[in-house]
This record gives sequence, C-alpha cells and structure tokens, in this order.
Amino acid sequence: MTAIPELQTPAALVDAARMRANIARMQSRMDALGVKLRPHVKTSKSLPVVRAQLEAGARGITVSTLKEAEEFFDAGITDILYAVGIAPNKLPRALELRRRGCDLKFITDNVDGAEAVARFGREHGEAFEVWIEIDVDAHRSGIPPEGEALLDVGRALHEGGARLGGVMAHAGGSYALDTPEALQAAAEQERAGTVRAAERLREAGLPCPVVSVGSTPTALSAQSLQGVTEVRAGVYVFFDLVMHNIGVCTMDEIALSVLTTVIGHQQDKGWAIVDAGWMAMSRDRGTQAQKRDFGLGQVCTEDGAPIAGYLIESANQEHGIVARTGGMDPDIAARFPVGTRLRILPNHACATAAQFPAYSALLPGGVATWPRFQGW
Amino acid sequence: MTAIPELQTPAALVDAARMRANIARMQSRMDALGVKLRPHVKTSKSLPVVRAQLEAGARGITVSTLKEAEEFFDAGITDILYAVGIAPNKLPRALELRRRGCDLKFITDNVDGAEAVARFGREHGEAFEVWIEIDVDAHRSGIPPEGEALLDVGRALHEGGARLGGVMAHAGGSYALDTPEALQAAAEQERAGTVRAAERLREAGLPCPVVSVGSTPTALSAQSLQGVTEVRAGVYVFFDLVMHNIGVCTMDEIALSVLTTVIGHQQDKGWAIVDAGWMAMSRDRGTQAQKRDFGLGQVCTEDGAPIAGYLIESANQEHGIVARTGGMDPDIAARFPVGTRLRILPNHACATAAQFPAYSALLPGGVATWPRFQGW
Repeated sequence: MTAIPELQTPAALVDAARMRANIARMQSRMDALGVKLRPHVKTSKSLPVVRAQLEAGARGITVSTLKEAEEFFDAGITDILYAVGIAPNKLPRALELRRRGCDLKFITDNVDGAEAVARFGREHGEAFEVWIEIDVDAHRSGIPPEGEALLDVGRALHEGGARLGGVMAHAGGSYALDTPEALQAAAEQERAGTVRAAERLREAGLPCPVVSVGSTPTALSAQSLQGVTEVRAGVYVFFDLVMHNIGVCTMDEIALSVLTTVIGHQQDKGWAIVDAGWMAMSRDRGTQAQKRDFGLGQVCTEDGAPIAGYLIESANQEHGIVARTGGMDPDIAARFPVGTRLRILPNHACATAAQFPAYSALLPGGVATWPRFQGW
Repeated sequence: MTAIPELQTPAALVDAARMRANIARMQSRMDALGVKLRPHVKTSKSLPVVRAQLEAGARGITVSTLKEAEEFFDAGITDILYAVGIAPNKLPRALELRRRGCDLKFITDNVDGAEAVARFGREHGEAFEVWIEIDVDAHRSGIPPEGEALLDVGRALHEGGARLGGVMAHAGGSYALDTPEALQAAAEQERAGTVRAAERLREAGLPCPVVSVGSTPTALSAQSLQGVTEVRAGVYVFFDLVMHNIGVCTMDEIALSVLTTVIGHQQDKGWAIVDAGWMAMSRDRGTQAQKRDFGLGQVCTEDGAPIAGYLIESANQEHGIVARTGGMDPDIAARFPVGTRLRILPNHACATAAQFPAYSALLPGGVATWPRFQGW
C-alpha cells in the first residue's frame, strides 16, 4: 500500500477510523431507539464504505439513482429503496432489477405517478412495491399527512395492483437548524407526521407495514421513534462542515478531506494557490447561509489538524485560493511554501466525494484505493 | 443508435451541429487573426469533441490535469500544454509522459517552482519545456509583465537547464465583463501584457518563442493579436449561460444541455420537481452575479426551445425545482405533467459536463454515446 506522502494531489482522503466511529455512533443510536438503519449510499457510492455500514448492523440500503441500485445489487445487496420519486421512463430498469431478484422498492407522491406504476406493473405482471413519500416540513417533495391526496395515492397503488409497502419522509428542513432543541423538534415533527400518514392509510383499510424517516440531523437528535420502523441517513458516514455547523458532529469527526498541494502565491493579496479547485471541492457553498461560512473548505495540515482562520476562499476549475479570514496574511508564502501539502475539509461530503473516481482510504497499514462510481 | 425519447434521464446532451458551428466560428476567427488555436480540453474531456476541434484546424491542446494529458496522449495527441502551475510532486508523471514521446509543456510563475523543475530535470537528464505564467489582470496566478520576478523565473529556468518555451496568460477577469468595448479592452490588455513579458525576456537574452493568450471571451473579442503566436480557449466548444450573459454567444448556440423528467409537483408553491438536481447540473451559480441570474439553469422543451421565465430555481442531490421567475405559476402541474421531459441549459458547461461519465451526442442519425473521463 502507498503512504500519504506518495499520493498525487488532489486526492479524496477517507479517514477510515473516523468513518468506522461515525458508523458505530449512528448504528448504536438506532439500535437503542429500536429501529432498523437503512443508510443512504448516495454519499459514498463506494462498496467498501457500504460494506462497513452493513457489517456494523445496517439492514438494507437507500439509493438516489437506479445506477446505485444496479451497482450495489451486483455486489450482492438485495434490500434496496430508491428514494427519489420514480419517473415513468425508469420503470423498465426497475422491472429488470426486480426480475433479477433485487428486492427493489421505490417511491411516489402523486396519483399520476402511482397510476403509471400500477399500469406498467399490470402490463408486465409485476406487483411493484411502492412507498408513499410524505412531506413533513414543506421542504421539497411529498404529500402532507393530512388531506385526501394521501389516500388517493394509496388507493391508486393498492387498487391498481401495486404493493403499498409503507410511507417515508425526509426532514430536509433540518439542514437549516443549529440548536439541539430545534433539531429535536424537527425529528419529532418528522416522526409524528410520518406515523400519522401511516395511521391514516391503515384506518382507510390500506396496508402500510413500513414507516421510514430520516436525515442525519434528525436521526442524531430524535428522542423517540415510536411508530417508526426504520431510519435512513447518509452523510453521517463522513460528516462535513455543514453538519458541524448544524451541531451534530465535531470537526475532528469529519472523515472526508481533500489532499492538495501549494502551487504558487499572490503574496500581495495574502493568497496561496493550491491544486484543489472547484473540480475537487465541488461548488457547494452549503455553509454560506449557516452560522459560520467556511468558504469552499477549512484548511488543515497534511496530518489533518485544522489551521484556524485559513479557508479556501474561492476557486477556479483546478485552482483553489487559500487565504486567512479577517485580514490578509502577508507571510502566506513563507507559511505555505510551494510544494506544501494541506488537507481541506469540505462543506458537503456528498458533493465533494462526487468529484472523485476513487477515495484514498487511510488504513492502519497505509492507503487503500476505494473506487466509487458516477452517473445514472 | 438510440433516439432522444429512449434516453434515460438525467442525460448530458450535446447538440453536435451547434458544437461544430462553435468550433468553426472560433477556428475561422483565429485563422483570420493569424494565430494557432490550442483548445482547452478541460471543458469536454472527451475524445470525439477534441477530434472535431483538431479536424477543424486546432494545433495542439491545453489540459488542466495530467490525467487529461495522459488520456489524450494515449489517443495520439502529442502537442500538449498543462496549463496549471506544476506542483513538484507531479514532475515524475510529467517526466514519464515526455519519455513516452509526449511533447508535454507545463507552466510556473515562481522561482521556487522553476528551481524545483530545473533541479528535477537535471537529476533525470530531462530538459523540461516550461512556459512562464503572466498575470495580466490580477485575476489569479501569474507574474506581472513588469518587475524583476519575471526575469528571475526566466533565469532560474534557462540557467537551471530547463527549456524556456514561452509565456502564457489567461484573462480570467474577462468573465466579469459584458460589453463589447470592455471585452475588446480586456483582450488588448491580455495581448499587450503577454507580449510585453515576452519582449522583456528576449531583451534580457532569454528565449521566448511562444506567446500564448486566451479565454473564450477575449478570444472572441480581440481586434488584433500582434505578437501573439497562439490562443487557448475552452468553453466556446459548448458555450453556456455565463457566456450568454457576457455576450459572446446567443442562447441557441449553447450546445450542452441536461435532459430531465418531471417526477412530481408542489402545486401550492408553483413547483415542478425534476430528476436533474445538483448532481446533474452541478452547484455552479455562475450567473448569480451577472446581469441575468438563471438560477441553476434555463428550462427548455425536450426539443431545446427555451421556455421564457422558467428556471431550475434550487436543487438537492437528485431533485431540481422548476419554477417561474417573477410570480409563481399556479398551473405548473398542468403545464408540465409527471413524465414531461425538459432540457436545461447550464450556467457553466465545464462544471455541468463534469457531473456525467458520458455525453449523449445528437447526430443526424440518432444519439451516440461520447465517453468522458473524471479525476486527476
């Protein structure tokens, strides 16, 4: 195995010890709350990471694309939830996966979609398992727990010949919060709304075995998950600066960073220029609207110790500009000479990871390459 | 070959006719101005695209990573400029490419870098060809044309045993402009500064055969390129909304778009939700600070006709939110029912293209798959 000093830059480093601690923390929390954990693998898209989650006790996975479903099914994982509203043009691929033996489930939040799924299923002799997406915080997709739309979609599925497998919600609004009290309230709102939707379906004589909720902030904040059968969460496996600002991880729990090299300076401006631009960091500015703005990333030493006040201030495709916040550093060229290697903590692990075809995983014996995949 | 209606979404469409027209426009302009065109292939990272540029008359290519250099050299292209300041740790890979027969050139803008290159070259019996990066607009990297630093770097290379091949500049500041007059002035500033740097090196008895300038906005605005030997430009091959706002292309010259499908609605909010989120569009918000903000992209029909006022307003990883600017559309669900397919024009073609492992190229006979690569 190679060692960190031999890596080409930029590289996506995964601190495997931190990752395993993050996995253990979430799994033990879900065990204590009495629910299944179904990790969202859109964060890593990498088999060694997902294997570590399953070995720690996760049951099934959540995916954001059918490509993820296909890749992980080919690797032997069968219990898969595709958690983005299904488009009618994707049904043939979903059917193919089910016919190959994949226990694929997917979601919808509207009658047109439900009818299209049921019709396609009848035409092909397949009772697709569909979960209904519930909107608990007016964040994005989903049907409110109250109102007729929920029952209309439930009936369109059930009476159309699909298998109504459950309800699911994602409290995406929790990303805008940053106090334990607000996060606990968001978790309870997510739980209560999703359980209420399940109860309404059952009261209407419709099946609803699964009640699935989840986001990393609410999963780590929930005080009770009564009525819930499983939790989905993704970014906890790596964490990032957005999660740090929300308050659900410390900076030294962040397992993903970008290794980079100083390639020049503009000393008059207090800039060190590094070879991690937006192609490496992504353009995600998730901390911009939070209590602390980390630019495009927090600068750390090559060993991973944060260097207070130094951020990636801006970036072009393959150039990152490192500068000090709160006053330019006139000694930046002496502080970070050409060739200096730094690590950058990302705003959003899902976005930064997606820029790389593989991770460089830091293991006790050296650095291993963990491939990840791209595309749909 | 497949047809557009058979494509899975999201997909990165390249309108090959528009692309060829964009290539012809830039090439004929460079021919008329009497300079070589060395296209920057970081935009497409795709061999069919680059082949079309070379067949139209381009001479050599510019790359932003050594991975690009390796991929395109393996495809038979030898005249390659790596146009990001070289980090010392990349010299062994650069050496390997040169030993395999690649006419690889790279750049530096500082004495430490120049000395590291010269020293490594002496140790390995290789006279690397290095160009000096010139700063013409205080935009990012480079040395000012005036002052001692330029001659110091030139001497460190030349006397250290490297081959001083020329000077190069990139007028990145042109991206902040949007009038023909300002763009012409930026082009002249880029030309004059780079030529001046070359003259100063020559006056000091140093070689400087190449004078390389370029950015898409300045290349399309320059009135004279006297003293310049070659121009580099990248995004012109596809164009995008940022270039449209700058004023160097019309909307119907944009050759790259993202095909997407409507998966649901939040009718109360005037939202249609599509399966192109930031994973497909990228997080690039390049038009945010320009005269017209296109959100995360301009919505068009499946055939590519812009639908005035409809943008991707915001996005999550695999969800894009389509909304009307200047007042919500209460009829959005009827306008764009579930299953509707739309095309989205991107803010920044380089960033959006990078999210996809391949393009779906629209050719007269149907859709071809043009692979592209990722990583460093």
